[in-house]
Amino acid sequence: MAFQKMPGTQDIMPGAVERWQYVEQKARDICRRYNFREIRTPIFESTELFQRGVGETTDIVEKEMYTFTDRGDRSLTLRPEGTAGVVRAYVENKLYGEPDVSKLYYIGPMFRYERPQAGRYRQLHQFGIEALGSVDPALDAEVIALGYTFYTEVGLKGVRVEINSVGTPAVRAAFRERLLAFLEPKRELLCKDCRSRMDRNPLRVLDCKHDQQHFTDAPSILDSLDEECRNHFGKVQTYLSDMGIPFSINHRLVRGLDYYTHTVFEYKAEGIGAIDTVGAGGRYNGLVAEIGGPDQPGIGLGIGLERTILLLQHQQNEIPAAGDIDVYLIALGEAAEREVTKLVYRLRQNGLRAERDYLGRKMKAQMKSADRLQARFTAILGDDELARGEIALKDMTNGEQRIVALDRLAEAING
Amino acid sequence: MAFQKMPGTQDIMPGAVERWQYVEQKARDICRRYNFREIRTPIFESTELFQRGVGETTDIVEKEMYTFTDRGDRSLTLRPEGTAGVVRAYVENKLYGEPDVSKLYYIGPMFRYERPQAGRYRQLHQFGIEALGSVDPALDAEVIALGYTFYTEVGLKGVRVEINSVGTPAVRAAFRERLLAFLEPKRELLCKDCRSRMDRNPLRVLDCKHDQQHFTDAPSILDSLDEECRNHFGKVQTYLSDMGIPFSINHRLVRGLDYYTHTVFEYKAEGIGAIDTVGAGGRYNGLVAEIGGPDQPGIGLGIGLERTILLLQHQQNEIPAAGDIDVYLIALGEAAEREVTKLVYRLRQNGLRAERDYLGRKMKAQMKSADRLQARFTAILGDDELARGEIALKDMTNGEQRIVALDRLAEAING
Repeated sequence: MAFQKMPGTQDIMPGAVERWQYVEQKARDICRRYNFREIRTPIFESTELFQRGVGETTDIVEKEMYTFTDRGDRSLTLRPEGTAGVVRAYVENKLYGEPDVSKLYYIGPMFRYERPQAGRYRQLHQFGIEALGSVDPALDAEVIALGYTFYTEVGLKGVRVEINSVGTPAVRAAFRERLLAFLEPKRELLCKDCRSRMDRNPLRVLDCKHDQQHFTDAPSILDSLDEECRNHFGKVQTYLSDMGIPFSINHRLVRGLDYYTHTVFEYKAEGIGAIDTVGAGGRYNGLVAEIGGPDQPGIGLGIGLERTILLLQHQQNEIPAAGDIDVYLIALGEAAEREVTKLVYRLRQNGLRAERDYLGRKMKAQMKSADRLQARFTAILGDDELARGEIALKDMTNGEQRIVALDRLAEAING
Repeated sequence: MAFQKMPGTQDIMPGAVERWQYVEQKARDICRRYNFREIRTPIFESTELFQRGVGETTDIVEKEMYTFTDRGDRSLTLRPEGTAGVVRAYVENKLYGEPDVSKLYYIGPMFRYERPQAGRYRQLHQFGIEALGSVDPALDAEVIALGYTFYTEVGLKGVRVEINSVGTPAVRAAFRERLLAFLEPKRELLCKDCRSRMDRNPLRVLDCKHDQQHFTDAPSILDSLDEECRNHFGKVQTYLSDMGIPFSINHRLVRGLDYYTHTVFEYKAEGIGAIDTVGAGGRYNGLVAEIGGPDQPGIGLGIGLERTILLLQHQQNEIPAAGDIDVYLIALGEAAEREVTKLVYRLRQNGLRAERDYLGRKMKAQMKSADRLQARFTAILGDDELARGEIALKDMTNGEQRIVALDRLAEAING
């Protein structure tokens, strides 16, 4: 009986994992420059946290959560996204009491029970940031800039930024009425999802992939913004322009989550099939209070790593190499075998990347292994050399071979 | 209503996360030198995989698994340990068909429903390695050495290695009879767990924390080893001695998991309360076949990161600093505010770690913020400087201040 991974999950194997390491390291480097610090929250949280923090009427909470009961009869959910847990931790650990804005980032797995398809997984991975405690529009621009910088630096081409403002709850309530007045006469023309959303969360109707042809004359939320909202959104645009970040305004962009206020944004890339949005975020000034914290504003961004990596591959972006082995050691004979075991250990202690055979293979097979690993040097130890305290060191870049003392091997390799 | 993290889980916050980053980076560095490559397997697997791969009679499978049914009616389990998933991936991805030994490492969360206590979590984190495809005792020594190197390089003091051989299944069957003959007359003296283990897995009785006083004359499995086992174990000891790794033989060491063969080992540190073992591993030559793969041998090691980090703190090992901010920019006035937003972005694009205020605070409060962040420089921009295209740059290490052109700010900071 052979076991298989569960549908929608993946094994990230050597050869592919190097790209993940590279992309994650870039995210960490950029966050360091932007002074975002890492936070790690648990893989599972109470189910209620997501019901409250993501929103009861969202697809995520309605259809996609991995919810179960633990041995202590608690309802747990594997986190479907990163923001709710970070905001919970911000409140529980009282970060709001610190004098500076909390600028946090996370990298890790999320879980959504979706139909598996290219670029969509049930265990997916996100890089996200959350900045809590400030309403400054410069922070909105900074968060958008950080995401854009990430895509640029990992090498993804053709990424565009779309932005919008969804205003305050009061603005949205007024716009909702205008929008419903526009949609109601078209109800019968719209898809089932749209009709259902009209009753529950009408702004999200404008997100529909099928019905865009009916929305050409739809009212724009931007016309409903009050002065404060217009001022905030105007400054975000000014700052983005100053930074030279290319963006466009998409007044239909509302995002799937209920908790956004003011700025929302998405990063779009040239699609492969269903893939279009590679990252998104927005301001959520009501969320901290919603989940029981003080009335502190926030803004965040989430980037899908599977999609980013799939698009990088699609664009034939070069895979960063695993890096070469410094030296491959070959033992001829049992005494040499023992000495090589010790030598490999010592070279590694000296910071070198050293490898050897573990299969009792003949010298020729070991040389092939050294080639596969692109070893810079091979070092061959026979009983004769061992008796003299020496080893034969071959430079694989030019084929030159020389004899070096065993205790100078690390030096000789470091050159 | 405020939400709390679930019992047995933790938030790793800025200030603490730097130690995790440091320890994990060390693990990655060492694996690179030893030519182990990262593998990432899913957080959940089929429940059967762990029943088969960890063992039905283990505490983990009997009492501690987070098992649940998904929306497609599959029985899933959050992985309680790392080996079963890696071996499943090795088989499913046919790594055994590659010419070289598969040397893999992982770092990530595991889940066990245990009673929470100091150093024990329900979501715990492990660094582990698995080497599949070779029976060479040099590989046993290498795996043990890698773990020892990890503890040494992260700075944990006083770590000891204990090793034992549990032989082949045939050796164990013979020893089991000898051991039962010794234990049977003492049955009534032993604790409930021991009596239960006598019937299911008698070797594990010797692991008991309570009943050691009854085992002083217990037979040693080392006396039951056949020649092949003795030879293998002898070589492991020779290699470890050659490497200068301090170890002792503990003939009662059997480990909790059913699948070990030949070498088993534990790393012990001076305890805090219940903490004693900080890492462990062993050879498992039957496991790959057990979970449906070809008959390939393996050996692995798992290190508990919570315990390692708790002991590092207990030993007052210095926390690696988050690193300093290069420059903190202060804007005086609205025009300067806009320029600073752009400047901060540009400096970060140039690789500098730059920060600013997002709370509209007065200059004095901003200077305090710069101090808290240990900024190397502060740069102050007023409307006058802005009009001249300049900025005041203050070196916080010596208090010296000078005026530099805005477009030479990065250079001036880089010195």
